[in-house]
Amino acid sequence: MGVSLKDVAMRAGVSVKTVSNVVNDYPHVRPDTRDRVQRAIDELGYRPNATARHLRTGRSGIIALAVPELGNPYFADLAAAVIDAAAHHAHTVLLDHTAGLRTKETLVSLGFRSHLIDGLILSPIHLENDDLLRRRAGPPLVLLGEREYDAPFDHIAIDNVAAARLAVRHLIGLGRRRIAFVGARRDSRRQPAHLRLRGWREELLATGRTPREDLVVATDGYDRLDGAVAMTRLLDLPEPPDAVFAYNDLVALGALRVLAERGVRVPEEIAVVGFDDIEDGRYGAVTLTTIAPDKAAIARLAVDCLITRIEAATDPVPPRPRRILPSHTLVVRESTAGRA
Amino acid sequence: MGVSLKDVAMRAGVSVKTVSNVVNDYPHVRPDTRDRVQRAIDELGYRPNATARHLRTGRSGIIALAVPELGNPYFADLAAAVIDAAAHHAHTVLLDHTAGLRTKETLVSLGFRSHLIDGLILSPIHLENDDLLRRRAGPPLVLLGEREYDAPFDHIAIDNVAAARLAVRHLIGLGRRRIAFVGARRDSRRQPAHLRLRGWREELLATGRTPREDLVVATDGYDRLDGAVAMTRLLDLPEPPDAVFAYNDLVALGALRVLAERGVRVPEEIAVVGFDDIEDGRYGAVTLTTIAPDKAAIARLAVDCLITRIEAATDPVPPRPRRILPSHTLVVRESTAGRA
Repeated sequence: MGVSLKDVAMRAGVSVKTVSNVVNDYPHVRPDTRDRVQRAIDELGYRPNATARHLRTGRSGIIALAVPELGNPYFADLAAAVIDAAAHHAHTVLLDHTAGLRTKETLVSLGFRSHLIDGLILSPIHLENDDLLRRRAGPPLVLLGEREYDAPFDHIAIDNVAAARLAVRHLIGLGRRRIAFVGARRDSRRQPAHLRLRGWREELLATGRTPREDLVVATDGYDRLDGAVAMTRLLDLPEPPDAVFAYNDLVALGALRVLAERGVRVPEEIAVVGFDDIEDGRYGAVTLTTIAPDKAAIARLAVDCLITRIEAATDPVPPRPRRILPSHTLVVRESTAGRA
Repeated sequence: MGVSLKDVAMRAGVSVKTVSNVVNDYPHVRPDTRDRVQRAIDELGYRPNATARHLRTGRSGIIALAVPELGNPYFADLAAAVIDAAAHHAHTVLLDHTAGLRTKETLVSLGFRSHLIDGLILSPIHLENDDLLRRRAGPPLVLLGEREYDAPFDHIAIDNVAAARLAVRHLIGLGRRRIAFVGARRDSRRQPAHLRLRGWREELLATGRTPREDLVVATDGYDRLDGAVAMTRLLDLPEPPDAVFAYNDLVALGALRVLAERGVRVPEEIAVVGFDDIEDGRYGAVTLTTIAPDKAAIARLAVDCLITRIEAATDPVPPRPRRILPSHTLVVRESTAGRA
């Protein structure tokens, strides 16, 4: 209605720059200043002309984050961390969940909704290398997670093989001899043996043990229910395992539930290690030993990489794709160490 | 680059309408059709002209959902349900978390980022009635959650008093006499006694019991840690409770952890009821009895209300604000019924 930034600034008694900072949702504006500017905006009925800005810069200030499951606390934690990291670059996050569907992952990776976003952070489960190589258009893309691709995109993921070896080494150190792996994918055509399973195998071989394939349990997914079903199967073996390394914490928590139901003592009879360090694992009747990826670092690095790429979009020679390995730690709790 | 919808339609061998459906992310497009259209879009380098559409309709096709905590699985479930419900109306969801901060809730409610969004669904914790009454501009707003306001906005929430009374009635029916409430807010100036606490009190009074205020434990927040701290305090009372009704499942799970640590038998010595029906409660060593709000209905009703309001934005007489009460159920599990 002809109300300008300048009108708002005068009404609020601040500089145009400050109004602009508030309107663009930049951090580090004092709350009371923000309130005053917002009040002036309301009183004058000012509407920031995002469309004009969008036309001018060609950017929306929005980045998308696509994760397979919001119901998995790992991804909820990661999403919260990405929202924080993006705010430091004055970007808003559009959060999408692909529900672990390949079609949805493909669509997202190919630039679906690309008219809304400046860039995309994608954590794929099913996406194939060919899907990525087919990608010729769309906004800058950064990949997260343990699937490895031979495609020219930045990829942020901890060293999953090393992390899995660390978990298995911990169990070997406790004297366990029949260490199961729970959470291999059932559909091996689509999903090759993943890195955590490879780490399990490598560590056993490196210490002179034979990986027992009957102790590798495939699951339909990576949820508590999958862990419960798999654990039931393992307990019904003639010779059950004395340790379980689970693909993630949710699978491990499902396994722990079955062990509690069956009255199996943890860790005395069966020790359990998960992966992700979600909060649920810290509050069970038996707290869960787990691999803790540095989620804040993953989020920060992903956003940094993406912003760099967005800003280099018009460079004649784009930056080389980077493979970054944030750190991880083994967090030892009751499911392997027992109660103090 | 001069590539039109029609060019894409011809390349893909489909109608312009179908291309438009894909571009606008409408549901019910067959995956193979979607793939074919997407391939044509990639090959031709077509970019949907969202800016032009935005200028024409004044709408972005984006609605925002602001929740206090993504780390609480209840809100993660709700977010996933809202994303699904919005997709049925061809809207994209921009997810924001307010981290339970009043300043952030106020900013969001006042129309922060309103240049990006057509409407807002907000689940507030600290927002005051005055904050809402001050709101004179900004996009259509729908409220979620148990805080009650006397302000002209649609509000979707289950009947929290009735739900709490149902939980307490269940515990009374089990013969429990010292029923604690865990999760009252410590800062009572900001957060008046909430509806779940009121339900606890009303049900005790209605059955001729005296609500014992020493069994009401205030907490700093609604997380597992808060439940653990509160449970520790209750166990240290000269006469501990024989039942706990927790503000939510996270608080209940924190309490269960402490009970396991202390070797207190659940439910024999202390029965526990939570609120939210998050998945974590179904997989503990003792599964959690809880109040289950109909999350899918909450999400659907919130999106329906918001879309109605967005479409009525230019009506001379806007629709009257609605207060809608989705249903809830009591789900009885081991923490009150014991193991079968």
